[in-house]
Order: sequence, then C-alpha cells, then structure tokens
Amino acid sequence: MELVAIGIVESALDDRALAPKQGNEGAPDAWLSVAAEFAEGLDGLCVGDEIFVLTWLHQSSREVLRVHPRDDISNPERGVFGTRSPDRPNPVGLHRVRILAVDGLRLQVRNLEALNGTPIIDIKPVIGADERSA
Amino acid sequence: MELVAIGIVESALDDRALAPKQGNEGAPDAWLSVAAEFAEGLDGLCVGDEIFVLTWLHQSSREVLRVHPRDDISNPERGVFGTRSPDRPNPVGLHRVRILAVDGLRLQVRNLEALNGTPIIDIKPVIGADERSA
Repeated sequence: MELVAIGIVESALDDRALAPKQGNEGAPDAWLSVAAEFAEGLDGLCVGDEIFVLTWLHQSSREVLRVHPRDDISNPERGVFGTRSPDRPNPVGLHRVRILAVDGLRLQVRNLEALNGTPIIDIKPVIGADERSA
Repeated sequence: MELVAIGIVESALDDRALAPKQGNEGAPDAWLSVAAEFAEGLDGLCVGDEIFVLTWLHQSSREVLRVHPRDDISNPERGVFGTRSPDRPNPVGLHRVRILAVDGLRLQVRNLEALNGTPIIDIKPVIGADERSA
C-alpha cells in the first residue's frame, strides 16, 4: 500500500506550530499543484466545485495513538481515531474545500490548513446531501 | 508514503461487480475490525458517532485517469479526480458512516459499500456543520 504524490500544496503556511487546526479557523487560500502526468484526472473539475483533498501530513508522528484534542492538555486524552490530530498511524489529511480558480494544472482552493509542500494523494468530489454544506 | 492497515472490513459484500456505488444505495451494515496494536486509538468513539472511514480499495486499477462516471458509458468520460471511481492513482476510499455498535475492537457501521476484506487505513470523526448531515 504505497502512495504516490499526485501533486503538492503551495501555501503561505510554513510552520506546523502556526497552522490553524481546521480550515475554517483562519487557514489561507492555497494552490493545489498537480503533476503533469496526472493532468487528465482533473478533467471536469470546475470553479465552485466542493472537493475533498487528501494529503500526506509529512511532518506528523505515526507512533501516536492517544492525544489531547487540539493539543490542549486541558482536553482529556482520547484515541486518535476519535480526533483529527495529524499524528496517527497513517497521517492522511482530509480537507473539504471549494475550488476558487483553475489555472492549467493548478487549482486554487479556499481555507486549506495544510502546510506548504504537503504531498497531495487524492482529490474527490463532495457528493450527496450528507457531504454538502448545510 | 507507505500505509499500514489498521484493520479490515468485515462485510457480506464479496463481489465488486455487485457492490453499490455509494453507501446510501443499498450497501449493507458492516463491521470495522481493528487490529489489537491500534486498540488505544479507538478510545472515545461511541455508538451514534458519525465517522469517515478511509480504506484501501485493493481491487482497483491505479493506471486509470479518465472514467465514465458510475461505469455507465452513456455518461461522458471525465477525470477520476472529479469522480468517486475506485480506480484512481491512489485507490483510497472515503466512506461517511454512523457507528451502530461497539464491541471491543470492532465497530459496526451503517451502509458501507466497501468489500469484505478491504484494508482500513484510518478512522476520523465528522466535525463541523459543513461535514455533518443536513
């Protein structure tokens, strides 16, 4: 089960310690820069579409099974699978964002909390009422 | 970027050709059986919680960049990143389900369209109004 990077995040966010916990907590707009060999996979994605971006959170620890949610020690420890901690056995990030612009192999998206240089492993459309915004 | 299986799907679904395209299209309830070494990661997950299950769709082709959505050739071909096709460069499945029961290392969930034996790579809580059911 070996992942390939289909692209990379281009963002002003460079420091994990300064990154917001969630996209809707002040994360900047960012660009998804897709590698040329995967260009055909983007066909049909349009401005305004809601997508899930799956990333590889390359600065994470994979040895962690319990955390204080949101890195706040006043929150009781719990299992990582009940949290969105980037530290987990498979540090795959899941980000629900909207496409703001399409420029060839690059998609601009709103409020992405992934760091600059984060590998992108998949892009999926948001489908069905239960995945859409209220 | 090497994934580890944190567990496996136990389901009555055995044949990709017979599997529903989406969980809400008649997929059965199923069990997520988590490996003992990851048990601590489940701490805090409860009946009624909505979760995302990430799987490795092990029967998929990774060479596909364009598909007819829903395997229906009357649908125009488009890029896989604009579809939920299991065939894609990184065949990671994303399933939003509700926990029906917790039995030790096993979680029963509603309407999972993954095949029996599918490796599980992550479990995350659904958070925020924009990820919840309407």
